[in-house]
Amino acid sequence: MGIIVQKFGGTSVGNVERIKNTVNRIIEEKEKGNDVVVVVSAMGKTTDQLVSLANELSSYPAKREMDMLLSTGEQVTISLVAMALIDRGYDAVSYTGWQAGIVTEAVHGNARILEIRTDKIKSHLEKGQIVIVAGFQGVTEEGEITTLGRGGSDTTSVALAAALHADRCIIFTDVTGVFTSDPRYIPNARKLQAISYDEMLELANLGAGVLHARAVEFAKNFSVPLEVCSSLEKVEGTFIEEEVAVEKNLIVRGVAFEDAITRVTIFGLENGFRNLSDIFTILADHHIDVDIIIQNQTADNKTYLSFSIKDKDLKDTADILEFNKARLGIDHFETETGLAKVSIIGSGMVSNPGVAAKMFQVLADNGIAIKMISTSEIKVSTVVDEKEMIRAAQCLHNAFELDAVEQNI
Amino acid sequence: MGIIVQKFGGTSVGNVERIKNTVNRIIEEKEKGNDVVVVVSAMGKTTDQLVSLANELSSYPAKREMDMLLSTGEQVTISLVAMALIDRGYDAVSYTGWQAGIVTEAVHGNARILEIRTDKIKSHLEKGQIVIVAGFQGVTEEGEITTLGRGGSDTTSVALAAALHADRCIIFTDVTGVFTSDPRYIPNARKLQAISYDEMLELANLGAGVLHARAVEFAKNFSVPLEVCSSLEKVEGTFIEEEVAVEKNLIVRGVAFEDAITRVTIFGLENGFRNLSDIFTILADHHIDVDIIIQNQTADNKTYLSFSIKDKDLKDTADILEFNKARLGIDHFETETGLAKVSIIGSGMVSNPGVAAKMFQVLADNGIAIKMISTSEIKVSTVVDEKEMIRAAQCLHNAFELDAVEQNI
Repeated sequence: MGIIVQKFGGTSVGNVERIKNTVNRIIEEKEKGNDVVVVVSAMGKTTDQLVSLANELSSYPAKREMDMLLSTGEQVTISLVAMALIDRGYDAVSYTGWQAGIVTEAVHGNARILEIRTDKIKSHLEKGQIVIVAGFQGVTEEGEITTLGRGGSDTTSVALAAALHADRCIIFTDVTGVFTSDPRYIPNARKLQAISYDEMLELANLGAGVLHARAVEFAKNFSVPLEVCSSLEKVEGTFIEEEVAVEKNLIVRGVAFEDAITRVTIFGLENGFRNLSDIFTILADHHIDVDIIIQNQTADNKTYLSFSIKDKDLKDTADILEFNKARLGIDHFETETGLAKVSIIGSGMVSNPGVAAKMFQVLADNGIAIKMISTSEIKVSTVVDEKEMIRAAQCLHNAFELDAVEQNI
Repeated sequence: MGIIVQKFGGTSVGNVERIKNTVNRIIEEKEKGNDVVVVVSAMGKTTDQLVSLANELSSYPAKREMDMLLSTGEQVTISLVAMALIDRGYDAVSYTGWQAGIVTEAVHGNARILEIRTDKIKSHLEKGQIVIVAGFQGVTEEGEITTLGRGGSDTTSVALAAALHADRCIIFTDVTGVFTSDPRYIPNARKLQAISYDEMLELANLGAGVLHARAVEFAKNFSVPLEVCSSLEKVEGTFIEEEVAVEKNLIVRGVAFEDAITRVTIFGLENGFRNLSDIFTILADHHIDVDIIIQNQTADNKTYLSFSIKDKDLKDTADILEFNKARLGIDHFETETGLAKVSIIGSGMVSNPGVAAKMFQVLADNGIAIKMISTSEIKVSTVVDEKEMIRAAQCLHNAFELDAVEQNI
């Protein structure tokens, strides 16, 4: 007996039959005697359809209005799920982001949750009602509708679980758990029984696609026990928790990859940290995600700076750099698109020198050129040509023997 | 220079091309130097699609959840209209019902507006922005989303015009104005230059379909100058105002008709006004619209009571009467569906006895049986067989010469 937050993505509510299936999952949890809060995304391709409608009316749709538009997607789903539950004889009530008290910063398209005012949800749970909350959306203090960006429904569910001190947050998705790599591309990828927040965070950040990074961050910060499992198959999923007791002996836990990466290289910067901080401050102000940053100094006292961004941010980034060229002390800059990031992740890496070296060796042996490198305590990322991405990932998955069966210690 | 409220229905925003056309109409009004507030409905068949989705998931969808579902329709439209205006270089901002401060009573599916808190809208107008408000929807004091029922967007626009002390409220629709009868069925129906609130009220109540009755009531109570005109053709519409100077000599101004009427007859009531008030109180409590009421007393001191309702309310009405049979002193009741109401309307009627008699004569001459009659100062309604509805309307339209050209005095 406790509070369980369940999250169902767009695929799980994609049509009437799937909504009925989702309703069964909700009822199962309720029948265990738990208080259930459900977070849902927009139905299947709804968001894409709304975006294309917007693009027909505006070449650069106003962000405030996009949030107004897209937030209708989840509102449709919550009402349908609630009425289906009521039809089955369960007391249910749907809540939009603003009704659920999900207060965000005043940023359209990519807002962060500041606070969740759970009074209303709690009072419904006390009455035995199932509460269905719209994912992906919130409201500013001024009453403006915001959205949380890609994977925002994951964030909504984890944030709700944290605010409600839920016993678990279960993310239902179209895969059966977290894998050593993306099984759509790496056929021998294997499902993990458990993974730590930090490992999951790197996997999420590196484009593993199962869970949004911000959601994992939230879960880690508030110690929310997470589970990722399939909405279609009834098999055990993957647990995400602080300490993963099993499998400690595995150095590398997964291989992640992400395409559509652009490298930007800036030439002619005078040495001095002022310029660097100015550049990344201005990019952050424009909500451009900079990932890998590499800096080198040359004999003539100039700094050569490279960083990676997503392809979709290229136009904005180029505009910003061009506009501020003089102020930032940029001589000129070059961009290279069509790149991909391939990374290996594992908590065991920190105490095992030579893992990075092995990675570079494997790629070199297979004739894959490395264009950028970035390392952290639990991951090594390389940027390679987009065309080599899957091959690089497969070679690494094989070399680190990630398809080997897990051993319980 | 002043405030103009424009309302565009579902047809006027039914697809991308029509939204662009609507945006042109908004810009024209703004360019005249006016402050413009726009109320829009859901796109074309959106509401119908959402309703059928709900029906697939629940045989009797919860009303609260239906409001949650249906209110997304207008939210999609406001954002699209706003982003299209911004794309054209105009500053625009969209507002849902709750954001626009449209406070309603706590009734789902058919709420009445209690108050409009216009502070936010006014501050946008002061900045020169065009404000796009979602029609048909509001919010209770407790933050629950409500809808206003059929024709609710008309009500939203008139209520906003009243609250903002607008100079005019223009209802754009798929007809060019208010006609002497429905031109889809009565080929020689003629467009009126002007009509009084009271006449329009009777026309709206009697199913003329151009404007919702509640909206006209609102306009009358707050003296909001109304205009009904075409969103497609640029021709003069019909003005609705307190005093119609022209055409005073015309006794009958229009013929209205409405199908899907049911007559309920209750037998065996003991005489006494208590029973009657109880019956209609309980029906009103269940939001069943009772229209014509006829009561007769017989020699054996029993009351025979007939009243008309809409076909769609038959099941609810029968359930309520059956359930409260004993308490209300009902012996038994009978219902007859498949009826229609045909009415003649005109302010001049009050000083012209014999108009009703002429109406009955015309129907009798054409072999159309009258099942119920109801009269007011400016209208006479008859209930006839649904199959005779159009023929009855056409005969009356001809007999009262409503196709004759208007004369300016």
